[in-house]
Amino acid sequence: MTQTRNQEIRLKELAQAIGGRLQGSGEIIVTGVASLEEAQTGDLVFVANPKLHAVARSSKASAMLVSEPLANETRPQILTPNPLYAFARIVREFFIPIPPPRGIAQEVIRGTDVQIGPDVSIHPFVTIGDRAKIGTRVTLYPGVYLGNDTIIGDDSILYPQVTVLQGCTVGARVILHSGTVIGSDGFGYVQHEGRHHKIPQMGTVVIEDDVELGANVTVDRATLGQTIIKRGTKIDNQVQIAHNVQVGENCVIVAQVGIAGSTTIGNSVMIGGQAGLIDHLTIGDGAKIAAGSGLSHNLMPGQIVIGRPAIDHITWLKSQALAPKLPEFRDQLRNLKARVEELEKQLAPPRRHQKKKS
Amino acid sequence: MTQTRNQEIRLKELAQAIGGRLQGSGEIIVTGVASLEEAQTGDLVFVANPKLHAVARSSKASAMLVSEPLANETRPQILTPNPLYAFARIVREFFIPIPPPRGIAQEVIRGTDVQIGPDVSIHPFVTIGDRAKIGTRVTLYPGVYLGNDTIIGDDSILYPQVTVLQGCTVGARVILHSGTVIGSDGFGYVQHEGRHHKIPQMGTVVIEDDVELGANVTVDRATLGQTIIKRGTKIDNQVQIAHNVQVGENCVIVAQVGIAGSTTIGNSVMIGGQAGLIDHLTIGDGAKIAAGSGLSHNLMPGQIVIGRPAIDHITWLKSQALAPKLPEFRDQLRNLKARVEELEKQLAPPRRHQKKKS
Amino acid sequence: MTQTRNQEIRLKELAQAIGGRLQGSGEIIVTGVASLEEAQTGDLVFVANPKLHAVARSSKASAMLVSEPLANETRPQILTPNPLYAFARIVREFFIPIPPPRGIAQEVIRGTDVQIGPDVSIHPFVTIGDRAKIGTRVTLYPGVYLGNDTIIGDDSILYPQVTVLQGCTVGARVILHSGTVIGSDGFGYVQHEGRHHKIPQMGTVVIEDDVELGANVTVDRATLGQTIIKRGTKIDNQVQIAHNVQVGENCVIVAQVGIAGSTTIGNSVMIGGQAGLIDHLTIGDGAKIAAGSGLSHNLMPGQIVIGRPAIDHITWLKSQALAPKLPEFRDQLRNLKARVEELEKQLAPPRRHQKKKS
Repeated sequence: MTQTRNQEIRLKELAQAIGGRLQGSGEIIVTGVASLEEAQTGDLVFVANPKLHAVARSSKASAMLVSEPLANETRPQILTPNPLYAFARIVREFFIPIPPPRGIAQEVIRGTDVQIGPDVSIHPFVTIGDRAKIGTRVTLYPGVYLGNDTIIGDDSILYPQVTVLQGCTVGARVILHSGTVIGSDGFGYVQHEGRHHKIPQMGTVVIEDDVELGANVTVDRATLGQTIIKRGTKIDNQVQIAHNVQVGENCVIVAQVGIAGSTTIGNSVMIGGQAGLIDHLTIGDGAKIAAGSGLSHNLMPGQIVIGRPAIDHITWLKSQALAPKLPEFRDQLRNLKARVEELEKQLAPPRRHQKKKS
Repeated sequence: MTQTRNQEIRLKELAQAIGGRLQGSGEIIVTGVASLEEAQTGDLVFVANPKLHAVARSSKASAMLVSEPLANETRPQILTPNPLYAFARIVREFFIPIPPPRGIAQEVIRGTDVQIGPDVSIHPFVTIGDRAKIGTRVTLYPGVYLGNDTIIGDDSILYPQVTVLQGCTVGARVILHSGTVIGSDGFGYVQHEGRHHKIPQMGTVVIEDDVELGANVTVDRATLGQTIIKRGTKIDNQVQIAHNVQVGENCVIVAQVGIAGSTTIGNSVMIGGQAGLIDHLTIGDGAKIAAGSGLSHNLMPGQIVIGRPAIDHITWLKSQALAPKLPEFRDQLRNLKARVEELEKQLAPPRRHQKKKS
Repeated sequence: MTQTRNQEIRLKELAQAIGGRLQGSGEIIVTGVASLEEAQTGDLVFVANPKLHAVARSSKASAMLVSEPLANETRPQILTPNPLYAFARIVREFFIPIPPPRGIAQEVIRGTDVQIGPDVSIHPFVTIGDRAKIGTRVTLYPGVYLGNDTIIGDDSILYPQVTVLQGCTVGARVILHSGTVIGSDGFGYVQHEGRHHKIPQMGTVVIEDDVELGANVTVDRATLGQTIIKRGTKIDNQVQIAHNVQVGENCVIVAQVGIAGSTTIGNSVMIGGQAGLIDHLTIGDGAKIAAGSGLSHNLMPGQIVIGRPAIDHITWLKSQALAPKLPEFRDQLRNLKARVEELEKQLAPPRRHQKKKS
């Protein structure tokens, strides 16, 4: 959650900050950032790729970040290999106000032996359990609950109503959006005489550095040991991570995905929205699971799958294109059968024919 | 969340309130409302359509709202074209207690320059950010968080633990159920050297008048610009609306639907539960997307689709009916192939036959 | 959410507690519990089935719960028919600290005529509505909201940010995980002149004894009457239960399932993750609905279904295995058609052949 601040800065300073090559005047004053469509005079925009050059030409922006320069363009341009990345850096560095730390509100409940670093912003109605450790510059919004023996790393932001239950660990520069729950009990029962008996969930959750979890995500604690989300992984809203799951580094998991117990996911894996993975799978590095897939087998590194059940995406594309043709296939089968019967009748000796009919 | 109050009112008053035609005595006293099955003496019920006349006859209700009168019925009936609509109006007007406004609880944290209208009910443990504007008769239940520069329109109700983050706007007569999050960051990253770098999400969310969002819904703020849900749209529990999505007027979106970034949905669109829409789609007015569908292409106005991948619903029905017949088709294909080979053998000149076998 | 306490207990006491048969010395001291892989000296482990005997042999555990004794094993073993069940009992009885009741925090808001039993733990920032009844040894974590006229049975635990709205009832020994919402409005509207008008949701929710609901679950109140979850049923994270649904006893419903309005589910039904059930279905006792299924018809007791649309699982397995072969089938059809045409040409009298061509 961010908001631009009023800012006036020379274009050449921005070019310098991102190491981009300036084409045109660096002396103009940039007052804001915007999308190509919404830009007004004074705004800096990014042109993600050359296909957008036509749109860029009609934009009202005063300056552009581009990967290839627009031809016959009089407005100044900054050349940079990844304009969106450069834009993100400029916005963060120059256009997002960093609020001064608020300190600790009066209406915060603290347990015993709590450690809190300097320059934190702890809002009202936050509860901090015994022996919790809160790093430097951490922000805890209203309604955040930290259980006993939790750890929150430096510069992390926990939005309103986030719950981090007993014994769980959150790394540095982690962002947890509103309503997200870390460390709810894993879904584990043992059946005995027709009833389900709870298996105590004694493990914890570890969220490593630079992870971001969307709103209303749930990450269950391990039965024994740890549920782990490794550094740099980004998870969208309403994702469910079951007990003892391990998610590797730099993965991207889109909204409403569900990952069942003890599944292990490699590094740089991408999982599309609403996909589901059953328990105890192993997913290789760099695998891609398309949106809506239902996966019930392991994946090799780099494998790409889609569908319910999930299969190789090329095979899926071919078979899905033909599924609507099933009625046509049925009709063709019937037609061929009739014609083959007719041919058989013509060729068959009378006796054999009669035998067939009986 | 509502509860009936004890009430005693003459049937003719109810008939008058909804402009219905009374058949039988209007002097009886109605003391409550109920379903056909649970009604007791004194209760008013609605008979949604004539198919339920038999059930209505055996109901213990004292009076009925009907679209066609029950034959040989001695109990009084109110004739009205849409009995359920009439029932809803009567319940709301006569049987739901309107609690007196509670004012602002002591345990509320207010920022600076907050504006609050008259007759509000602001419960304990609510946090209101700087410059927030709260309309007349607004109800904020415990745990509600309103960020800086938020606006809540007249008569809106925010249930416990609702989060409306910085800069987001909620219209009049809006209902947000518990745990719903408005304005979490959109899921936007730019890849650079194998890592995912956050694209600052600087836009906001606009929820227009008469919208209702269920419990634990998430609506992400736009990257730049606005995520919009237009007037009169009703959204069920656990729906995910990504950044820069636009949902038109009077849509109905059932539980657990996910709509990916920048998709634009027309007016009066219906989306069944657990459906998923990929990003950057355009859905025409009045389109219908069946429950569980996975949509990855634009829809024309009025189009009806179903399936993963979503296709025309008539085509889908035909092909789905045949999917279980695939083993039969395979067997028929094998059988035909054998018979064709046999026919070819019989017809073929010896040389050609041998050539084929090699 | 649990954590083991430091404990020193003789193995024979544990064997006795669960009625297991001890093989080897009962005098050793057990200091902890762990998984086979993570066990250290002093730990007790369980060997779920004989397939794990090899893993058990290399475990560092000091004692084991087994269903069949490991051969040539010098470490003591406790024989018990269901080692996991025995393990769960031992952990709960001997290794989970029972915190002393905290009483009622100062920062709790109470309505009028509230009844609270003895030995409760009511944390700060909890809100309790008028006439609420809270049983013995109930734990309410920070941020819990109980509406007017709610009832919470003995020994129940409500984790942070749980919302139980007006008039809803929660039984004894119930566990509600963080962010779960009981009693949000059912999703009911009546259309009139192109707009959706809210049908007042006047019913309630009843959660019976020994139910567990995961994190961020939503259970809507009935339109009229009750939404019911019967005793012993276990529900995972992010499940959606719509208005007037009835879930039977001892069911297991895995994460992200959605059940639409008025559907009735029998006892001991199992529903896999991300499955969806449409409204007004009746599901027989002991039915099994596989993960990701989309069900739109009733099920008989014991029926097993899978798929979207859900069909008999044997039929599904056969047809799904063939779906990727559709391109092959199409090619075979084309090939056969050509060969039949060739045969027909050879056999046909010239006149007939020409007729066909026209």
